[in-house]
Amino acid sequence: MDIPLNFCSVCGAPVRQRIPPGDSLPRAICDACGAIHYRNPKLVVGALPEWEDRILLCRRAIEPRHGKWTLPAGFMENHETIAAAALRETREEANARVELGAMFTLLSVPHISQVHVIYRARLLDLEFAPGEETLDVALFREEDIPWDDIAFRTIAITLSHYFADRRAGGFGFHTGDVEPPSGFIPR
Amino acid sequence: MDIPLNFCSVCGAPVRQRIPPGDSLPRAICDACGAIHYRNPKLVVGALPEWEDRILLCRRAIEPRHGKWTLPAGFMENHETIAAAALRETREEANARVELGAMFTLLSVPHISQVHVIYRARLLDLEFAPGEETLDVALFREEDIPWDDIAFRTIAITLSHYFADRRAGGFGFHTGDVEPPSGFIPR
Repeated sequence: MDIPLNFCSVCGAPVRQRIPPGDSLPRAICDACGAIHYRNPKLVVGALPEWEDRILLCRRAIEPRHGKWTLPAGFMENHETIAAAALRETREEANARVELGAMFTLLSVPHISQVHVIYRARLLDLEFAPGEETLDVALFREEDIPWDDIAFRTIAITLSHYFADRRAGGFGFHTGDVEPPSGFIPR
Repeated sequence: MDIPLNFCSVCGAPVRQRIPPGDSLPRAICDACGAIHYRNPKLVVGALPEWEDRILLCRRAIEPRHGKWTLPAGFMENHETIAAAALRETREEANARVELGAMFTLLSVPHISQVHVIYRARLLDLEFAPGEETLDVALFREEDIPWDDIAFRTIAITLSHYFADRRAGGFGFHTGDVEPPSGFIPR
């Protein structure tokens, strides 16, 4: 979630929520220097690394979902490409070297203003190891996937598409939206 | 481009660029309240509306590239899906009603920290008209596309893929990266 936007990042004066001329949504506006502060969805980008009939998962060492399993993924940085972000996150979280394949899933998560993108990837060797934000890295066959302990629904959806496509004999590109969980309280 | 980040949006104190513990890149950090300010790439989302053998383009009424032609597209907003953003921008810029098809191009533009996504779309009627940020809206056959007056390279690339795929008899999904133009000065 975004941190509060009470003060102008340009000049430090307090901001007010107001709809700018020609716009349709309220923005944080600085009456002192005129700056308009926009906030936009963030891209979370990662990879689904394959090794023969197994895929690589990471067990999270950080919140949210400490101790749960996920694909290596994280926030895309300014000045990088989306493919570079997937490679970087795979290296940072699993110390894993992969060759990226095609983009596999792109899922909107509007209640947290995120878009999650996962590439298929081919693991180049077995020299992976947990990064700083990871407790454990391991390879799983389909029948061993810890479905009840997957950290995020976008990751579970991606894994489901992967095994369904693999059984069907061809991989597609899957887009979709993820609704808020029941009991989600918007901020 | 992002506006300057000199002051903390949470408490108004000055920030300093420093690498947080466990991170690898400098971030704007507030020593007064501890807030870390991240900046991430923005999604620009739009549509390629088709009507028989013609496609819809908008002539820009705003900078950058005032007077140049583009597909309807703009910044995705918080709390919307990527498909909703494409529909909204098409309505705002061209007052056009479309049925979205598949995602068609996804292009990273790392030197300006953007990712551009264009969907194929079917124009539902001819009742389009320029929105506030648009001078003119018109339908173009391939041979009439104003290639020298297309506003953005990602849009020219998208149009090229579209006509190539149409000639080939099937539409794919195209990802790629756009390099900085010659003479680009990073900030």
